Amino acid sequence: MKKLFLLTAAPLLLAAQAAEPLAEPLTPGEVIAATTADDWRPIAPENLLVMTLGTGEEIYIELAAIFAPVHVTNIRNLARAGWYDGISINRVQDNYVVQWGDASERKPLPETVDRSAPAEYEFAMTESHIADFETVQQGNYEPYSGYLEGWPAAHAPREDGQRSGTLIHCYGMVGVGRGDNPDTGTGAELYTVIGHAPRHLDRNIALVGRIVEGIEALSSLPRGTGPLGFYEEAEQRAPIASVRLASEMPKAEQPAFEVMRTDSEAFRAFVRARANRTGWFIRPAGAVDVCNVNLPIRRAEAD
Amino acid sequence: MKKLFLLTAAPLLLAAQAAEPLAEPLTPGEVIAATTADDWRPIAPENLLVMTLGTGEEIYIELAAIFAPVHVTNIRNLARAGWYDGISINRVQDNYVVQWGDASERKPLPETVDRSAPAEYEFAMTESHIADFETVQQGNYEPYSGYLEGWPAAHAPREDGQRSGTLIHCYGMVGVGRGDNPDTGTGAELYTVIGHAPRHLDRNIALVGRIVEGIEALSSLPRGTGPLGFYEEAEQRAPIASVRLASEMPKAEQPAFEVMRTDSEAFRAFVRARANRTGWFIRPAGAVDVCNVNLPIRRAEAD
Repeated sequence: MKKLFLLTAAPLLLAAQAAEPLAEPLTPGEVIAATTADDWRPIAPENLLVMTLGTGEEIYIELAAIFAPVHVTNIRNLARAGWYDGISINRVQDNYVVQWGDASERKPLPETVDRSAPAEYEFAMTESHIADFETVQQGNYEPYSGYLEGWPAAHAPREDGQRSGTLIHCYGMVGVGRGDNPDTGTGAELYTVIGHAPRHLDRNIALVGRIVEGIEALSSLPRGTGPLGFYEEAEQRAPIASVRLASEMPKAEQPAFEVMRTDSEAFRAFVRARANRTGWFIRPAGAVDVCNVNLPIRRAEAD
Repeated sequence: MKKLFLLTAAPLLLAAQAAEPLAEPLTPGEVIAATTADDWRPIAPENLLVMTLGTGEEIYIELAAIFAPVHVTNIRNLARAGWYDGISINRVQDNYVVQWGDASERKPLPETVDRSAPAEYEFAMTESHIADFETVQQGNYEPYSGYLEGWPAAHAPREDGQRSGTLIHCYGMVGVGRGDNPDTGTGAELYTVIGHAPRHLDRNIALVGRIVEGIEALSSLPRGTGPLGFYEEAEQRAPIASVRLASEMPKAEQPAFEVMRTDSEAFRAFVRARANRTGWFIRPAGAVDVCNVNLPIRRAEAD
């Protein structure tokens, strides 16, 4: 079938690795093809969850341990305890989120879970953070958004003169469901973004990671018909069979992923390529929304 | 079930209509509840399509006749001719688009369809447009984005000194599939956005409308496993039973919708409410992304 409305598909077709940088404009695929191993960071097994639905579909989640250490520790402990096994998808709200947890609200949490986790919604930006920050976008929405240590983030001045950083709610980011303040959630209830980035949630809730593969199993679920997209009937809630930490698996079974480093010239070239599309495109935008960068994350060769 | 991660649900609970404006901050629901009939614009029946899938699910599309008149005329003529009946959903790409059309590429187009439609990708902004434009966002991505005549739009200076306006690819916007330039598409192949707004498509393709109800029937479809999310097997392509113009239906059957006017104080108050969320929120953002305004569109009382 003629493919009307073509994207520039990723042509991994560079015939030879040139010693000099390739002439721009490049396609995003050409930038990826020109990267070397140093341009990629492996996802550590203790930061990788494998969530298996009752259907057998697998969803892979990278945990942002550096930005939400207490909530991530809770999540690792919940996974180690097998606590997530048998919970369900409870809410699917179109152009917003998929949320999962214990629908009965009666499963006791393991002892290892911190029930009073601090509000890991934002962090003080150090000089080092500011130096490493790759700005992608500026505007009245916020002074600076971009990427920090491989994560989509933003920072802004605070009233006390410090600079506040936060991870941001791009598509596929994973956060911790909570009730009203001062509840910060434990990690027992999680959600992911399945629509236009709901940036108004930034700084209001703990982002702890992102889905790196398999989100389609969640984004294609039927939407809940109750308020806020909650399912009204128990049988509508897709069951979750298990959530496992990759580091708890035998090494030979551990899935391996790598993320393009965002403190690299390759990343800057990738952002430029996303901002200046060619081919089918007539008028390149000349800029790119921070949540439309689509940072490359891929399966890696196992060690 | 305790509803962790509450949005401020829309409380249509104003006990009395106050003569004075309500004290801000208001919730989005409070702004809507305080509107009067003058704050809403009905969707004209000749600008409303009813697309019925083979499952019986109905999807309602408002056509942006003022911004893409030739393509919209084509689409009306295709609907009047029943040409869309029996076509299919051919592509579902996660965090991107759902696309539908004639998979066989052999259905002859009606005589009434202009096969050489001009590139209705952008328009010259008149003084009147500029005066009516409600700016929501400014930044390095583009000088101005916001709403114009009820549609999400952006404008920027052009090389020739004129100011160029364009509709923008927010979630649920509908556009015309095309091949390579200079093909502009006819309207026989359409797509809608089901992920983070792909703004790089703005000014490169004709946006012709938006889904005002029923998008869940498309956004929850299984994703295609072929390149770019195209389905690989014919049986995967959900059939479209019919697409009808509301104006061609008996008046008693015509569905009625209304859209909040974007040249109104109510709209400005709504944008402020979206930008300054309260209640469950701890730190209001103070601004809102143009594609996160979520302009109110609702069923209206039939005349």
